[in-house]
Amino acid sequence: MPRPSVREQLVSSGLETLHAQGFNGCSIQNITDAAGVPKESFFNHFRSKEALALEVLGRYGEGSRIDILFDKSNPPIERLRQHFNFLADAYEKWGFERGCLLGNFGSEMATSHPDMREALRQMFEFWSDAVSSVLREAQAAGDISPHHDPDQLGRFLVNAWEGVAMRLKVVRNRTPVIEFFNICFRLLLK
Amino acid sequence: MPRPSVREQLVSSGLETLHAQGFNGCSIQNITDAAGVPKESFFNHFRSKEALALEVLGRYGEGSRIDILFDKSNPPIERLRQHFNFLADAYEKWGFERGCLLGNFGSEMATSHPDMREALRQMFEFWSDAVSSVLREAQAAGDISPHHDPDQLGRFLVNAWEGVAMRLKVVRNRTPVIEFFNICFRLLLK
Repeated sequence: MPRPSVREQLVSSGLETLHAQGFNGCSIQNITDAAGVPKESFFNHFRSKEALALEVLGRYGEGSRIDILFDKSNPPIERLRQHFNFLADAYEKWGFERGCLLGNFGSEMATSHPDMREALRQMFEFWSDAVSSVLREAQAAGDISPHHDPDQLGRFLVNAWEGVAMRLKVVRNRTPVIEFFNICFRLLLK
Repeated sequence: MPRPSVREQLVSSGLETLHAQGFNGCSIQNITDAAGVPKESFFNHFRSKEALALEVLGRYGEGSRIDILFDKSNPPIERLRQHFNFLADAYEKWGFERGCLLGNFGSEMATSHPDMREALRQMFEFWSDAVSSVLREAQAAGDISPHHDPDQLGRFLVNAWEGVAMRLKVVRNRTPVIEFFNICFRLLLK
């Protein structure tokens, strides 16, 4: 197997380090140390820490199994459950210490880094639209009320989920997830 | 009027600076510059930037008009509306650039700073309990379903709100707030 390229080492170590420590909580040196590459090599591949963070954000999105939402062999509401459970399992695997990278970058970088803000705006929109399209299918199947506005509800669920992801870091147990499921799936989605 | 003490200047400038730039996004020097005091004076009053951040968190909480929730001259659900609207107005006044300090610190510091995590745990619990007590009153008054679990719903509303506060930084318009109100007050709280 060929050795991963320096660029690839920077992206995968950058994802780990930026997710665990935050954008301002780590330096380029921390990232190159974690990648096991000389610091000078960083700027051969990325013009700034923000440029790496943008690449890392895309990589994180790719690992978020958004495809679960589009798996038509599963009933729509079940797909939503599986999607959010996949994310919650990942947060728990990290000891509830990392949260959601989108929310972390949103909180820390949206104001100070316009390119990041725009990338996050698009990713949140894509994610919310995917959730909304599942809700629309659930309505067509008669599984949830036809009175819901799926676009609005999709955005709301994603926002509420981001609050859960943040609170998990504070309480370090699964209660916020369990209560999100109880309230969203038992009360709201009917 | 006597001049504010150096300590008070550090707390009020610290609140501004830490809220606008984040914990790792500013230095002690940034804070003493904003306060107009020499950098050396910082350590006469606080042993670390985290110690100031903990004090600033308390100050932010005091400014969050939690008392609106306890004003029994208003119907319970109306108090909840006014409470969240007060917060939303503050976010908007800051051009949607600052979000909620609790959520910012939770996202950025909960994992790396145990004392901050504990302070946030207590503040989120206090806030959630206050929302839950209003929901309990609303149930007693017959304004919302007796089947809700007010404790769980209180925590859920606070978490969902935190997600809204983060998303506001990304979209920079009031839509996430409007949709939070539509879904929580029209659909959930009945």
